[in-house]
Amino acid sequence: MMEEKKTPKKQEVFRYEQIAGDVIQLIEQGTYRSGERIPSVRQMSQQQGASISSVLQAYLLLENRGLIEVRPQSGYYVRAAPIDNLPEPEISSPGLDPNHVNLHDLMMMAMRDSLNPGLVQLGAAMPNLELLPTERINRIMAGLARTASKGTHRYELPPGLEELRVQIARHAVNSGCQLSPNEIVITSGGVEGIDLCLHAVCNPGDIVAIESPMYFGTLQILEVHGLRALEIPTNPRDGISLEALQFAIEHNPIKAVLTISNFNNPLGSCIPDEKKKELVELLARYDIPLIDNDVSGEIYFTEKRPWVTKAYDKKGLVMLCSSFSKDISPSLRVGWVAPGRHKNTVEWLKFTTSVATATLPQMAIAQFLESGGYDHQLRRIRREYASNVALLSQAVTRNFPAGTRVTRPSGGFVLWVQLPETVDSLELYALALKNSITITPGYLFSPTNQFYNFIRLNAAAWTYPIERAVRRLGELVVELAGKNAV
Amino acid sequence: MMEEKKTPKKQEVFRYEQIAGDVIQLIEQGTYRSGERIPSVRQMSQQQGASISSVLQAYLLLENRGLIEVRPQSGYYVRAAPIDNLPEPEISSPGLDPNHVNLHDLMMMAMRDSLNPGLVQLGAAMPNLELLPTERINRIMAGLARTASKGTHRYELPPGLEELRVQIARHAVNSGCQLSPNEIVITSGGVEGIDLCLHAVCNPGDIVAIESPMYFGTLQILEVHGLRALEIPTNPRDGISLEALQFAIEHNPIKAVLTISNFNNPLGSCIPDEKKKELVELLARYDIPLIDNDVSGEIYFTEKRPWVTKAYDKKGLVMLCSSFSKDISPSLRVGWVAPGRHKNTVEWLKFTTSVATATLPQMAIAQFLESGGYDHQLRRIRREYASNVALLSQAVTRNFPAGTRVTRPSGGFVLWVQLPETVDSLELYALALKNSITITPGYLFSPTNQFYNFIRLNAAAWTYPIERAVRRLGELVVELAGKNAV
Repeated sequence: MMEEKKTPKKQEVFRYEQIAGDVIQLIEQGTYRSGERIPSVRQMSQQQGASISSVLQAYLLLENRGLIEVRPQSGYYVRAAPIDNLPEPEISSPGLDPNHVNLHDLMMMAMRDSLNPGLVQLGAAMPNLELLPTERINRIMAGLARTASKGTHRYELPPGLEELRVQIARHAVNSGCQLSPNEIVITSGGVEGIDLCLHAVCNPGDIVAIESPMYFGTLQILEVHGLRALEIPTNPRDGISLEALQFAIEHNPIKAVLTISNFNNPLGSCIPDEKKKELVELLARYDIPLIDNDVSGEIYFTEKRPWVTKAYDKKGLVMLCSSFSKDISPSLRVGWVAPGRHKNTVEWLKFTTSVATATLPQMAIAQFLESGGYDHQLRRIRREYASNVALLSQAVTRNFPAGTRVTRPSGGFVLWVQLPETVDSLELYALALKNSITITPGYLFSPTNQFYNFIRLNAAAWTYPIERAVRRLGELVVELAGKNAV
Repeated sequence: MMEEKKTPKKQEVFRYEQIAGDVIQLIEQGTYRSGERIPSVRQMSQQQGASISSVLQAYLLLENRGLIEVRPQSGYYVRAAPIDNLPEPEISSPGLDPNHVNLHDLMMMAMRDSLNPGLVQLGAAMPNLELLPTERINRIMAGLARTASKGTHRYELPPGLEELRVQIARHAVNSGCQLSPNEIVITSGGVEGIDLCLHAVCNPGDIVAIESPMYFGTLQILEVHGLRALEIPTNPRDGISLEALQFAIEHNPIKAVLTISNFNNPLGSCIPDEKKKELVELLARYDIPLIDNDVSGEIYFTEKRPWVTKAYDKKGLVMLCSSFSKDISPSLRVGWVAPGRHKNTVEWLKFTTSVATATLPQMAIAQFLESGGYDHQLRRIRREYASNVALLSQAVTRNFPAGTRVTRPSGGFVLWVQLPETVDSLELYALALKNSITITPGYLFSPTNQFYNFIRLNAAAWTYPIERAVRRLGELVVELAGKNAV
């Protein structure tokens, strides 16, 4: 209701952000290249059917972000070196043996540093709180708490709050997925969902095939359960190699496959929908469950939401995991799983290991989704993250030495940077920390150290301190590359 | 603040409840026995320094609950058969071999039935929502949500909210325990804490010594982790047998011991403080961790809070687990662990398997504890649960056939009932369900079926439908006992 009263102002804000987003896309697609002039304010106003003032605001935003510059008496020009000046990282080439994972001291160190407010945080993949609907969620929670009955203090036992499961099932249609609320189990965040799924289908010592690189939290879950990770080569654009996966399946007793098919963290890869279908069919032939983490699936920069693998699942083998931590709020700790044929086991594990998920956060998200606020929110963060990813990418391009490679994600909000071979990411981590900057060292994303010279950068926000930090990081990489080359 | 405005009325309520509580204690202690006259209203008013009206209200309450009866021209008399008409259950005598646990279908069935509002719920050990400070918590949460900053939407990473850990450490002094906030890890409810502790110190196949009977949720966690349960004989009064435990340790490679030293669920046993010290010292000699679930430790009916085993821990071997689900709200999902020397591992496991606990519930409990509301709340539920446990116990005594035994817990809110040997608790479960009543069958509390003729009853509430249900249950037990004896 608050939204409606403010409609005119909100729409105006939306308009100029939309224009800025369009321009960013044009620059990224190469329609306008570095040093080229973009349409004048008047032209753009006519093209877009927008007010002069909206276009001016949009251009000011782009200028402030260092994307375009104004040349007096001449117009607006694309300022930064275009994103594709640096090549993309190579496809990963892990060894052929499954590996036990043991990286937890490193992860806990990175976790603790991520809590330090004195550091510029380029390490942890935290969403940008400025872009999340925190005020709206707070209002909803305040309203719910004020009017809540005693009954809401009961355990909300698995599968979890029905209203929320209904909303999730409705929203899943956008991702090509026909889900019934009864197929869904609410979890305390996305990570718990992955933990439950792995637990449901694997026993200690089992082998799990994973995309490589893979989000370190997931590798840690493998370690917790005594599972062995078999890394499958993964392309920075279209994800896990099906040929390599098939080969691995034929030569190893693989019990599950683990992917982030939409916007792998850290790789940014997105398996094209047609290839997703092939992946699901391949695993169906061998009756192997696919645990697919779709936590960033809604944050796409393309025209259309990429589908989820679950959309192609005919045998109930796909275990789809997601959460609202990246696009609504990390602190509510609400996620969900659609575990297919293993639903009963997942529900039992959920009940046994944590009984239930907190009720009020589930109610708040259900209400937010029902009110339609979610779609508006998603449009906003897609635009902003697309812009911030482009800006960070350009800053890396400007500041890092030759030999650096960087991903071009079409969604999510992290960049995966391959540094010159002489640079060790742990050395860089220590050096960056002395400069009050965090990064995530590549070691964390594989049990085999193959990414020793990679780092992951969080692109969720773009501010002047971040811009300065990236410049400083570039200097540190140059320094290390030179020192180690000697 | 709302509290203060209402002070006079609240105090009056408090007064008559206090008097009623005192009378119940006098009856339980045997000061007044069945059929005996209790002090007149005038006498009691003088003894207690309370108004006539308070005493009248107290007697009315006791009368409504069937504890006393008024005889015209004569006075008030103790009505029910005294609680010690039925003998206590025997000490458990489990077999000597560790056992894999496999009871989850049964547990999930009981869990689902516990959600059915059409049934009289004597099964699940749900706290009585009427006695929990739900309105107060709702007000606190509404206030917090209204004034919360964006920052509260950040992940509240392990070890969890500092204000809450400070409050927990302060409160722990009452249980004999000097804890630093830095020793505490916040969990999503008490069960998660036990799960993390077991995970931290055991590997699949390991043997864990447990009190017998043991809360089924804990047995399920053992199953989840592929652990073997070695049941130790446990006395309904003073808990786990140290002699039997020592024997077990000498003959098995025991990796951890699991107890509910204060008010075992379902047994109600409480290990006396001096014996706790011996237990801790015994395990210290063998360097075996003790995972102690203190979730009901605050709900004591005696004068003094029983201490926690952690109070005697000199080697960091005691892993103390607790939660606020039984005395503040089940749906907030906030618990905590003081894992001693295994703290880093527990923290790592918490981060890896669920990242964080929801923030707002942590803030709400911290504020509630800080405001001093917790102590008031605890006094209230101790009185009420003592009364309700006594009432349920008397109702069982009145309605169940000879050969029945029932525990006399000095805390918590469950009763453990041993039925005649011819009665199978699963048969009774099915029959009770047909009569719209749930119970928890004894099978769930041991991996060895040794409690096939036991049931656990929830004594958190006492209402007329419950009274009627217990009467009906008694008839069903009589029926089954007769049928099976033939």
